[in-house]
Amino acid sequence: MDQLAPPFDPKDFRRALGMFATGVTIVTACSEDGTQVGVTANSFNSVSLEPPMVLWSLANNARSLPVFIATKHWNVHILSNEQEALSNRFARSGEDKFAGLPLDKSVSNAPLLTGCSARFQCRTAFQYEGGDHTIFVGEVVQYDSSTLPPLLYVTGGYALAARKAGPVSTEAQANIEGALYSENLLGYLFGRAHFQFVHGLRGTLQQRKLSDTDFFVLSLLSVRQPLATEEIAAHIAYTGVDLASGALQSMVQRGLLLEQPGTPTFLRLSPAGSDAILHVLAAAKAVEADLVNRMGELESAALRNLLKQAILATDPGLPKLWQAPDTSDTA
Amino acid sequence: MDQLAPPFDPKDFRRALGMFATGVTIVTACSEDGTQVGVTANSFNSVSLEPPMVLWSLANNARSLPVFIATKHWNVHILSNEQEALSNRFARSGEDKFAGLPLDKSVSNAPLLTGCSARFQCRTAFQYEGGDHTIFVGEVVQYDSSTLPPLLYVTGGYALAARKAGPVSTEAQANIEGALYSENLLGYLFGRAHFQFVHGLRGTLQQRKLSDTDFFVLSLLSVRQPLATEEIAAHIAYTGVDLASGALQSMVQRGLLLEQPGTPTFLRLSPAGSDAILHVLAAAKAVEADLVNRMGELESAALRNLLKQAILATDPGLPKLWQAPDTSDTA
Repeated sequence: MDQLAPPFDPKDFRRALGMFATGVTIVTACSEDGTQVGVTANSFNSVSLEPPMVLWSLANNARSLPVFIATKHWNVHILSNEQEALSNRFARSGEDKFAGLPLDKSVSNAPLLTGCSARFQCRTAFQYEGGDHTIFVGEVVQYDSSTLPPLLYVTGGYALAARKAGPVSTEAQANIEGALYSENLLGYLFGRAHFQFVHGLRGTLQQRKLSDTDFFVLSLLSVRQPLATEEIAAHIAYTGVDLASGALQSMVQRGLLLEQPGTPTFLRLSPAGSDAILHVLAAAKAVEADLVNRMGELESAALRNLLKQAILATDPGLPKLWQAPDTSDTA
Repeated sequence: MDQLAPPFDPKDFRRALGMFATGVTIVTACSEDGTQVGVTANSFNSVSLEPPMVLWSLANNARSLPVFIATKHWNVHILSNEQEALSNRFARSGEDKFAGLPLDKSVSNAPLLTGCSARFQCRTAFQYEGGDHTIFVGEVVQYDSSTLPPLLYVTGGYALAARKAGPVSTEAQANIEGALYSENLLGYLFGRAHFQFVHGLRGTLQQRKLSDTDFFVLSLLSVRQPLATEEIAAHIAYTGVDLASGALQSMVQRGLLLEQPGTPTFLRLSPAGSDAILHVLAAAKAVEADLVNRMGELESAALRNLLKQAILATDPGLPKLWQAPDTSDTA
């Protein structure tokens, strides 16, 4: 651990404080002349249950400070996972932050934003000195909450939270530190998650007499078609499947794909191929829905997010599958 | 959103407050007679940069309140991901919370715990009324931090944080809501993460003339051996590999596995099989290390955690691979 003696480097001190994760809030109020103000703050916290009280602090040089001091009413909005842009909007100064935003009815004239994880409508109970900030302690006069996963701020960036899981298959005492192959290897966890997911489709695949390779090719063409044989190979090669062994030709012979005459040969889904992949993808949706239901929305969103990071970190340069249509030649 | 009018149901109010994610801290102090006290608190937050100040609040009925009021010195520890047990220990009352804990040297006599994400050594600047809690605002006289991922508390449970990622391959405008097959499907993300990881081993596998099936079987036996043919099949079947097609016999013929005579037939790694899997697992470790380095420790820990949740949620009842030796018959 790096120890620094005073005087403090504010930047380093801020970085150390950033190790304390927080949610992100927007606190709003309305001045006597009807001007709406709002600031992004992560200095919020609960204080008291009886009476119900929360607190937050605002820099003494904040332009909106006089309004928060003059009015006794302010609303705290705990932002959801989807409200990163709103957080950024209220963290900046100078524009009409409320332009175009739908507002709910509030017990005071303080603006009440929508789409949040929770909201607390407060009346100032105490206003305290706190160095270069003013601490507002508010009595909560009304509140509500949703099930939307909250947005987080930690170590200087936005984040998602995910509950801690128990071990998958390891008896605690058998977990040998530093073992070459353990259940903590991401490589193992990726494979097991993948194959267990596909296992949930196995019945549908077998019923339709589809191999894993058939499944990959049909899925690919369900997103983009027609594709040349070489393009299909480029998309699929990283799975270790060797299309040179006649897999595509077999799919044509079984009536799953249609060949477009010409050089190079382009392939598209036949009506039977379309029907097959629609059924398999519907089964995949069902497995997915069951998984999300078991894990929870919060964890599923966090998992998607992290898998994307892992995929970006290990991408061998795959062609992009989902892509906006190229409109450059129509300009 | 569910709106509730006062009077408040404290439980529901607490649940709504729980939508605000926080880190977890332990705040410690020492009484004049040398008694060490410490409490788990998530009411911590930063207040001021100049002078550097932080705050937290403590219930007025807490047994340690008199000590925190009498002493002017207290230390705030932002707990790391690994300190969940420590958090639980200091959240309970009545035992000697500091028993067996290593302590670092502190600028005051307040105990300074180790292994944290950050620590702030404070002197009370203000002590404020806050309903059923007392708010302590402290000037930070010393601090330090590590790179250990912080522990989180959100919606009533411990959690990990993970940075938000950008899209993998989707141009934002091409991302069709509700599409049957999109890059937001966990099923797609699992497969892509898995195959990209194995792609990083492909060279080593090819060099050793190992198929994916060979790789799975050798990995399995590197953890547990000998195993009967049926046991190997039970561990591997969920991957869709059909061992009935003679894959194990081929591995014996290629000198990777040794058969133990008897019924049922047990298989173990040959010296050549051991050597092969050691090399492949070393390559896997390198791919893993590179991935963790790119993603960061925090994200990697969170990803492992979530993959385990997904695996537990989709487990078709696989036999446990890592397991403590069965000692029931030796008792």
